[in-house]
Parts: sequence; structure tokens; C-alpha cells
Amino acid sequence: MTRLEKQGAAAREAARQLAILDTDTKNRALSAIADALVVKSDLWLKANALDLENARANGMRESMQDRLILNAERIKKIAGGVREAAALNDPVGEIIEKFTRPNGLVIRKKRVPLGVIGIIYEARPNVTVDAAALCLKSGNACILRGGKEAINSNLAAVDIMRGAVASVGLNPDCISLVEDTSRGSASELMHLDKYIDVLIPRGGAGLIRAVTREATVPVIRTGEGVCHVYIDAKANLDMGANVLYNAKCSRPSVCNAAECVIIHSGVLAPFLKKAVPLLKQKNVLLKADERALKVLGSDAVAAEESDWDTEYNDYILAVKTVDSLDEAIDFITLHGTSHSESIITDDPAAAESFLNRVDAAAVYHNASTRFTDGGEFGLGAEIGISTQKLHARGPMGLEELTSYKYTVSGTGQVR
Amino acid sequence: MTRLEKQGAAAREAARQLAILDTDTKNRALSAIADALVVKSDLWLKANALDLENARANGMRESMQDRLILNAERIKKIAGGVREAAALNDPVGEIIEKFTRPNGLVIRKKRVPLGVIGIIYEARPNVTVDAAALCLKSGNACILRGGKEAINSNLAAVDIMRGAVASVGLNPDCISLVEDTSRGSASELMHLDKYIDVLIPRGGAGLIRAVTREATVPVIRTGEGVCHVYIDAKANLDMGANVLYNAKCSRPSVCNAAECVIIHSGVLAPFLKKAVPLLKQKNVLLKADERALKVLGSDAVAAEESDWDTEYNDYILAVKTVDSLDEAIDFITLHGTSHSESIITDDPAAAESFLNRVDAAAVYHNASTRFTDGGEFGLGAEIGISTQKLHARGPMGLEELTSYKYTVSGTGQVR
Repeated sequence: MTRLEKQGAAAREAARQLAILDTDTKNRALSAIADALVVKSDLWLKANALDLENARANGMRESMQDRLILNAERIKKIAGGVREAAALNDPVGEIIEKFTRPNGLVIRKKRVPLGVIGIIYEARPNVTVDAAALCLKSGNACILRGGKEAINSNLAAVDIMRGAVASVGLNPDCISLVEDTSRGSASELMHLDKYIDVLIPRGGAGLIRAVTREATVPVIRTGEGVCHVYIDAKANLDMGANVLYNAKCSRPSVCNAAECVIIHSGVLAPFLKKAVPLLKQKNVLLKADERALKVLGSDAVAAEESDWDTEYNDYILAVKTVDSLDEAIDFITLHGTSHSESIITDDPAAAESFLNRVDAAAVYHNASTRFTDGGEFGLGAEIGISTQKLHARGPMGLEELTSYKYTVSGTGQVR
Repeated sequence: MTRLEKQGAAAREAARQLAILDTDTKNRALSAIADALVVKSDLWLKANALDLENARANGMRESMQDRLILNAERIKKIAGGVREAAALNDPVGEIIEKFTRPNGLVIRKKRVPLGVIGIIYEARPNVTVDAAALCLKSGNACILRGGKEAINSNLAAVDIMRGAVASVGLNPDCISLVEDTSRGSASELMHLDKYIDVLIPRGGAGLIRAVTREATVPVIRTGEGVCHVYIDAKANLDMGANVLYNAKCSRPSVCNAAECVIIHSGVLAPFLKKAVPLLKQKNVLLKADERALKVLGSDAVAAEESDWDTEYNDYILAVKTVDSLDEAIDFITLHGTSHSESIITDDPAAAESFLNRVDAAAVYHNASTRFTDGGEFGLGAEIGISTQKLHARGPMGLEELTSYKYTVSGTGQVR
């Protein structure tokens, strides 16, 4: 057995114990984690300082360094997130359905944890704790594989969390970290079918595509978002400008931010007149198609073909002109990533058609794409936003980290 | 674009149309398929005769030839299956949940088709029709890739089905066959992420493992079944012998048949005394561990280590002795395939512990593993039995061929 196989087997064993654990014990473990992260924050900060030192020495971008950095306030917030997970309903054990067959068999469909969840992510130490807490609450063991840039922070966090769960009598192997951050270890993890039930990559499009391509363990793809706001011929243009500004500018780095506005030609000029002054407040770079460019003039540059498929994660917005709702839907079908799409219109028929026909995790009428989020949907915390159709779609909370099994009670029935 | 990419793009377009189609039209298409299969059965039988001729020339095993063969009676049965699919409830469009958020957003979780489903299977022409019918009823387009041994039968069946759906005004590309049966075409299909939402391999363990290993399209693993019957210390031994006989012998070739009996040492001799005469009726070959072998003598041969992990699909049964329920559960954890597991006991505590702790799609108390089946569970027809935990577990009917999307209706909300 390799080191990772041993870790997998230990996680599998811990998952068996966790699967039948009562809610109270899981909540006590989560409280212990939250407490320990604060009490031992010096340890965690010291490890984080080491990562930051390396980051600076290696010339890491400021924005990346910001994701990596911990401080007392952030630790408090992370610990708060763990307490919130404890407060959420435990989905495990729910009888989803119960029915009796004509032959007398009593069949129950019962919610159970997935088992062992592998999380592959980049240099964000908060993910280490968030993911572990959600997995624990939903009765799953987790194997965490963070980026090498955060390895010291992650080692410290996992050490603190393992100590905390052990202190309330749980098997610490329900949370573990892949300590080897080489490419090889990620690859081995992706093929650990025997011990891992599902892999959730969290990070940029490159990471997600690489995991999808290579893994034999089932993967849930998350977070690629080329999201559109479509301004219909019958849109309330003030509302449209306001929603677009929010969808693009409130937090451009996240996956539910809009990357492209599609404008019906009938309202092209009047809409841009309202929207551009708002977008200018944040110096949004507009990349427009030919027709929009004529209206925008020096306020925009010409879009290239590749712009329609780019997740900028920045203050950049593509602008596309269409002549009909159908053309807008076709454009979204071709260039969207099935994440979040919004129509702004006062025409109920257009809204209904858009909601029915656009194939995405979340489809909006007269609202910002930014609402695609576990918290905003009322699911509590989320482990990611699924952009695939298998298993779970959109924000994944605790319930999306479960499966089910059938239990069948008989009196000697044979077939 | 390659030929298969074109086929994928056409299926994707058909799926968009199918996704919003009303139930009546889908049912009319299914009726048309059932009618056409019977009316044009000469065409289908002629193509099948060609496959059989090739099969004999290539020395195909009798049992394999039997799976391949069509006749009037079988066609009638297959057409009947299509009519049954028409009679099932349409899961698409169901509002699974609806809730209003404090900010006034109305969120609906709505059941939608998966989209395009790829089915990779072996030489069984009935699968071609069964799978197409279930996909169509659940609003999914399908791309079928059957074995080369059945290519003529499949070409004819798909031709008849496409004609039938076109006759009621549907896009025929909602059903298509991969005509190239080379290894290369299967491989290309497994990487057609852009057009296929999920791949379902149906066939032997080798096929399923190969698809899981290679595919980048999400896969649902089905049908690997190393199933156990555990005879507890407090079992009703007559019931146990009867259930075991049924689980092993009623249809040994299927995935829910038992491959191994686990016997508590306290009832080893008396149980075998009851079970062996039944199993002898079918000349079941017993492969026993050391303790069971002592009791069985010349009625058995010694099991080898590999026997515990073998899906015999034949009149062969492994016999394992344990000293406790815990040991039985550990053995199942180690050697089971998470398909179907059964405990025979009159002890409610032992039954509850087994049902809770054994991690499988279907866990039975005092009943045969043979009930793991869409029809027996009341789901109607099934497309396969999932042995993974992601998306669907156990028998997969129409509902398991769907996903969901969130539609969000607002009045200009921003975040």
C-alpha cells in the first residue's frame, strides 16, 4: 500500500463510523473544531506566515497573496462558519420515501452520507476548514488536497481539527490532508476509486478541467461561470442597468458574476445610455460586437470571438447584440457554462420561455445572477456550485453531500 | 467536426426540443415506436438473421447467441415494454420545491431531463429499444453504442424508431446509433463531454471498468454484483435456505443474484443440512472456506482467495463462515460491490444493525437479493442498477434519468 492508499483506507474506515453517528456528537465535534481554531490561532498564524514568506519570495501576485493570508479576524469568521455548519439540519437518516409492495416487502429510501469525499483546491486556507466542516456535518470523511502555496497553513489547520474531533471521541481520520503537494499525489488521488466516492475540485477552470479529464473517481464539476444578463426588448431598462451593474461589479472574481450582457437591438442605444455610466464607476472595460460598438464608440473596444467564451473574473464585460429572444437563447446555449443566466423583461411570455428553455443550474427573471449561492438560496453553507447535471446542480449544501440507500424488510419473500 | 461530433451536436439540438415537449407527444412517439417495431418486424428479423449468421460463423457461445436472437414473440415483448414506458408517469416538469426568500425572490427547483445520454452496451438488441424508450419518456436524447455482434439488428431497430418518432413530428435525432463499432468510436464517445451529459455502460464488469477508467463524460456505474446472503445465529434456517436458493438459483446470470453465503458458525452445520439439498437440485458448485468444508465434505471444493471477489453469474456459490455479525459486515465491506446484501435473522437488533451499517444500494432483512429491480421496486422499467453513490443508487427508473434546475423570479433584486 502506498501512503495515500493507507490514508484512503483510514478515511474509509472513519467514514463507516461517521455514517452512523448521531447528530449531537457531530455537532460537538464541530464546536470543538471552532473552539480549537481560535484557541490555537497562534499556531495557525505562524504556519500561515511561513506560507506568506514563501509566497513573497516566489513573487506571488498580490491578489493571490490576499487569498492566502490569515489574521485574527478571518480566523474568527472561519470558526463562525464551522459553528453555522453545526447549526444546520442534519440531512442524514431522513426517510425520503417509504412504500409497501404487494408482496409485503417494506421498502425505505433512506438518506446516507456519500462516504469519503476528496476535495482538490488551490491556495485558500479557509477552504480547508469550510470543506471539512460541511463533510463532517453530512457524515462524510474528507481527504483534502490543497495547493502547495498553502501547505503549512493547511497542515496546521488539519492538525488542529484532527485534535479537536479526537477530543470528543471521534476517529481523527475523518479529516485528513494530502501532505505531498506534487502533481503525482493529485493524480494518485484522482484514481483512488477504491476509497473515495466523489471528488470535488474547487478552483479555476484549468484545475476543474484537468480533474475531470484525469479522474476515474466520480467528479462533481463546480464553479465555471460564463454568465449572461439578457436585456429583452420589453425590459425595464433602469432595472436592467441596475441588475447588470450588480451582476458584473459587486464581486467580479466569483463564478456567479456576469461576463456578458446580451441586448435586444430594439433597446440597444437607450439601454447602453443607462448602463454605461454605472459601469464606468468601476472602470469596466467593455468588449462589444459591431452593432454595440457603433453606439459605444470610444467607450468600448471590439470583441474578439474568444471573448464570448471567456470567464474574465475581472472588471471586463462582453456586449452582444441580438434581434430576438431566440437568438439570445441560442447564444447562451453556445457560450454559457450552464451556471447562471438572467433575463430582464416585463413580458411574462418571454420570461417563461427563457426560464424553460435556457439550460443552466439557475435561471433568473428580473434578478441578478449573483444570487446563485448556498446562503442566498437558504441551503446554509455550500461546498461549491455544480455546473453539471449529474447528482446535484447549482449550490451544493449538506443534502447534496448525501446519497441514499434502500432498506428492504421482509418475512422470507423470494422472487 | 468528426462524424460522431456531428451526431453529438444533432442529439444535443434534439434534446433541447425534447426537454420542453409535452407528455402526450412523447407518449404518441412511444406508441408509434411500439407499432412500427411490430409492423416492420420482418425488416428487423432479417437484419437479426444476418447478425446470427455472423455469430455462428465466428463461433459465438450458445448462451451469447441466445441473448442476440430475436423472434416474433420477443419483438412483441419488446414493443410491450415501450408501451409500458408510455404508461409511466412523466417526471419532467415537476416542481420539487418552491420557496420564497426574505428578499422576495421566488425560487423553484424544477425537474428537467439530463439532456443527452450515451449508452454503451453489449450484444443485446432489446437494450437498444428499452434504453431509447426510457430516455425518450424522460425527455432525453440518446446516443446508443451497441456491440458489433448486433450491429445489423441495431441499425434496423434505430432506423424503425427514428422513422416512428419522425412520423409524429419529433426530431429523429433524439435517437441515434453509433454505426462505427470499433474501439476508437467507443473511446471518442467517452470523451464527447461537449455533447453528452452522462454515459451509462450496460454489460459485464470489464466493460463498466473500462468506461469508468477512460471516460471524461460523467459515468453511472451499473450492475456489478457480488451479493451476499448472511445467515445469522438467530436465523430461521428454513427461511434462510429458501431465500438463498432463490437468490442463487432463480436467475444466476443477473447482477442481483447471490454469489456468496456467509454463515454464522453457531448454525453452520444445521443450516447447510437444510440448504445443500436445495442447491443440489441445480447442481450448484460450492466453494467453501475451511470450516464449512469440514461440514460439507465431498459436497464442496475449497475456496481460493479470489473466490470472495468473483461475480460467477453461474451455478457456483462461495461459502464463508464467521463468528459474529461484525465479522459478516466487515467481510461484506471488503468483498461486496455495494449492490444488494441480505441478512436472515429473527433478531431485530441484528437486523437493524445490518440494515444501518452495510453500505450497499439495497440492504435486505429476510428477503432475497433478487428483488433489486426497477419493476420489483415499483419504479416501472429500469435502465440499470447503479452501484455508485453519486446521482442515483440501486434501480434507475425515469426519475433517475432526470436532473433539476432552479428558476428564480424577481422584481429587480440585486445582491
